[in-house]
Amino acid sequence: MTTPTTIDDVTAWWATGISDIEPGVIRLRGYPVEQLIGAVSFVDMAWLLLRGDLPTREESALLEHALVAAVDHGPQAPSIAAARMAATCGVGLNTALATGVGLLGDVHGGAGQQCLAILDDLAGADDLPAAVADVLADHRARRAHVPGFGHRFHPVDPRRDPLVASVDAAVDAGTVAGRHLGAALELERQLAEGRSRPVPMNIDGATAIVYGELGFDPELSRGLFCLSRSVGILAHAWEERSSGGRIKGPIPRPLLAAYTGPAERFVCDPRA
Amino acid sequence: MTTPTTIDDVTAWWATGISDIEPGVIRLRGYPVEQLIGAVSFVDMAWLLLRGDLPTREESALLEHALVAAVDHGPQAPSIAAARMAATCGVGLNTALATGVGLLGDVHGGAGQQCLAILDDLAGADDLPAAVADVLADHRARRAHVPGFGHRFHPVDPRRDPLVASVDAAVDAGTVAGRHLGAALELERQLAEGRSRPVPMNIDGATAIVYGELGFDPELSRGLFCLSRSVGILAHAWEERSSGGRIKGPIPRPLLAAYTGPAERFVCDPRA
Amino acid sequence: MTTPTTIDDVTAWWATGISDIEPGVIRLRGYPVEQLIGAVSFVDMAWLLLRGDLPTREESALLEHALVAAVDHGPQAPSIAAARMAATCGVGLNTALATGVGLLGDVHGGAGQQCLAILDDLAGADDLPAAVADVLADHRARRAHVPGFGHRFHPVDPRRDPLVASVDAAVDAGTVAGRHLGAALELERQLAEGRSRPVPMNIDGATAIVYGELGFDPELSRGLFCLSRSVGILAHAWEERSSGGRIKGPIPRPLLAAYTGPAERFVCDPRA
Amino acid sequence: MTTPTTIDDVTAWWATGISDIEPGVIRLRGYPVEQLIGAVSFVDMAWLLLRGDLPTREESALLEHALVAAVDHGPQAPSIAAARMAATCGVGLNTALATGVGLLGDVHGGAGQQCLAILDDLAGADDLPAAVADVLADHRARRAHVPGFGHRFHPVDPRRDPLVASVDAAVDAGTVAGRHLGAALELERQLAEGRSRPVPMNIDGATAIVYGELGFDPELSRGLFCLSRSVGILAHAWEERSSGGRIKGPIPRPLLAAYTGPAERFVCDPRA
Repeated sequence: MTTPTTIDDVTAWWATGISDIEPGVIRLRGYPVEQLIGAVSFVDMAWLLLRGDLPTREESALLEHALVAAVDHGPQAPSIAAARMAATCGVGLNTALATGVGLLGDVHGGAGQQCLAILDDLAGADDLPAAVADVLADHRARRAHVPGFGHRFHPVDPRRDPLVASVDAAVDAGTVAGRHLGAALELERQLAEGRSRPVPMNIDGATAIVYGELGFDPELSRGLFCLSRSVGILAHAWEERSSGGRIKGPIPRPLLAAYTGPAERFVCDPRA
Repeated sequence: MTTPTTIDDVTAWWATGISDIEPGVIRLRGYPVEQLIGAVSFVDMAWLLLRGDLPTREESALLEHALVAAVDHGPQAPSIAAARMAATCGVGLNTALATGVGLLGDVHGGAGQQCLAILDDLAGADDLPAAVADVLADHRARRAHVPGFGHRFHPVDPRRDPLVASVDAAVDAGTVAGRHLGAALELERQLAEGRSRPVPMNIDGATAIVYGELGFDPELSRGLFCLSRSVGILAHAWEERSSGGRIKGPIPRPLLAAYTGPAERFVCDPRA
Repeated sequence: MTTPTTIDDVTAWWATGISDIEPGVIRLRGYPVEQLIGAVSFVDMAWLLLRGDLPTREESALLEHALVAAVDHGPQAPSIAAARMAATCGVGLNTALATGVGLLGDVHGGAGQQCLAILDDLAGADDLPAAVADVLADHRARRAHVPGFGHRFHPVDPRRDPLVASVDAAVDAGTVAGRHLGAALELERQLAEGRSRPVPMNIDGATAIVYGELGFDPELSRGLFCLSRSVGILAHAWEERSSGGRIKGPIPRPLLAAYTGPAERFVCDPRA
Repeated sequence: MTTPTTIDDVTAWWATGISDIEPGVIRLRGYPVEQLIGAVSFVDMAWLLLRGDLPTREESALLEHALVAAVDHGPQAPSIAAARMAATCGVGLNTALATGVGLLGDVHGGAGQQCLAILDDLAGADDLPAAVADVLADHRARRAHVPGFGHRFHPVDPRRDPLVASVDAAVDAGTVAGRHLGAALELERQLAEGRSRPVPMNIDGATAIVYGELGFDPELSRGLFCLSRSVGILAHAWEERSSGGRIKGPIPRPLLAAYTGPAERFVCDPRA
């Protein structure tokens, strides 16, 4: 027995608290758009739409540091490489951007989200050193990397220090509480114990601190990373597009020796 | 006869002028990333990566106005609707964002790019009124809308006036030349002639002025629109995701009467 | 210390056991492509590429039944709706298809994969009824649906019976072992116990039996579902594309009453 | 003045002639799905959904040859490479498939569509040799390749001969008219005139003949190519997924020498 759908059901189905559109009127979270243009920054606007209210100047600045930091890490990231290849295939920049962003999944784009989930837990711990020790023991037992720490290429990620310093200053100014920062630093400290080389925070860990201090949900922090990295994806796609290449795959010419499957055989071969 | 690929070919194939990565070092367009964090805004960073150099404060502000203006137009845009539906299907926010951005094609996302191509032509015209008249005559002959003008819902797009005012102020300040603005205003003036209702610039036209005055390529202006609208897509996807709905299609319940094809028939029906 | 990349590294990086391409020669899993064209069916070819060898005629027929069964379930599925909307946005059918397939995530497209993971476990059970009882107890404890069983719209999914009959015949013919079928039927039997309405297998459950009996990995079974559903996505996108609609969102006209957020407020409002 | 949307408007908005779904009933183009399972092939089903009626056995066989022929051309195609990279990023096979299919744009996936548009024109020509000469003169004047002819890697595409032979046999059997075949052969003949090396049909040209003879629209033929290539994309994504690699970009290790942009500079550098 299926109840018929009414127009009120459909209206409710598509209801939103974000945008209120009437003829000649666009309000975003209640603010008329013409008041926002010129008055708020792009990062303020992102915060407004995602959180429901405008940030303070200090909150917005801290978020901006994280968004600036993560824009790009070069064409060897699969997200960037795929977007560059897309740009040579006769699709618009929108498709190149979608191609790159689409690859920021649990492995390539999810370390920050996973790190923030851990930091959110630790931020509420009564005994932080003990709680951190538990987290590390758990990861060691599972032979898992701690998301947000260590980098396969950078001994020290150059984005760590300025982001930690930004959060530190925001704690001093009373903008944020500092519990995520404290948790991440304790993780970093304990991770280094007994090792010849430390395992410092990477970009995912450092931005997770920012997002956590500012109260973003771990899942939404992935969305913010995607927004940040969109800038790099777009720049690389445009560089490729401007160069005029066509149907560029990963290698200039075919690699004749790269086949590892069965030798030639025939459909009716009785030996097959 | 195929020349073998060498590692130098591969290196050249993936060369970029955007990011320079060494162990412990990330330079973007030559600037060490740790210097950029905290010193430049997110919009500055987008300009740097897309254009190669940092913008002036005034250029950055003007670009920011355009990016702020276009973030969202509600859940009935197919890009937003598709992203909201994606968010209920067990995919990450990256896929929801990619789904929405991917729909910003020539029709849904291309009007600004098409408008800017026209404005770029008109900006160099010696006799602007005559050049505009030619453009309009050409569109009328093809029964085509002039991209960037008119809106099927808003009599006047509320984002027009603040963006025009921003460009106007930037012309007065000597930041931009004003030729794209002049071309767009002349197009708007001539489009209104002999009509009871004017056909004012919409968001695509108003942002095309900004992008054109700032020297962005029309194709890249689509990329900037995608970056701007990414904020709205992300906000709507997150709103849907937070609501906990699952596999939400366009309508709450099946529409039993919506089938318009052939009546029931059978595979072995001799009459079929 | 980073070892330099050599061309042999790159070659190995892109090595594949699927396709062997030389000038004038294309071999797929060892078979020259010109021998396959006309000799094998499209489903045979999919099996060959995915599994490495050609299927028997009986295996191919059984796979074909599953692929035929899952092609479409109408425009209210978000994957189909999103693809239809994409088709009106000035993107190619490739983007419409990608849009739809991209939505077949863990929730919308993953029930078959999850069901097959369960069936794979049960297929090796010594005491099937006890193992099934354990699975059901575990799901009840987590208040989770058993993936592959029950349908929010169909009391009995009309695709269940013909697929179960196909597998049954294949068991009789010795093509497959029947352990996945047995596990699914026992799940269905125990799920119905003590209920007024049974919770019969749906399309995800019925196809999971087929894929499991034929030895496909659960994760790959999602890929096969995507291939099947691609046919429906393509047909719906094409129907929409042929109709000439432009920028079609979920509703014909704006729903003015659908806003649920804050009332109008102003950027400088001291009360805000 | 905006007319309110009614539920009938919404129903009409989502109307379809493809699938007719009621509780317990799924009819595709009028046929109950339980009758189709086991009775029709996967290719028959694709034809039914795309065209509205079941094909004859001969039509289905010819379509199957084209779909079989185009499944794969190795991991250096950007569509395949991007899908393989996606598979290492923690996304589902659905996203890997969507990533690859999304790249089949006008340049990478559109040659068949463009070729078929030409063949459709030529198929109706009274004087075929003259019409073909006009087409070639037009392409030479624009210095454009004729889509569907020539290959940058294969001197002769091994898929050409079996597909031409299949169409030839279908002409002899009266299944198709042969006008697209005639047009393509005349194009090939005239393209070879005065050259030391012929410019034979490639896979796009040979499949365009099949799709044209069977009455598919050029735009839809791109959709069929996407369906065919989906098999190869899926196989390559699965091969990569099974190998367990993570975040695989185009090159095993960073290419330190691949940067071509400005030398190091500093944000406050007065020389910058």
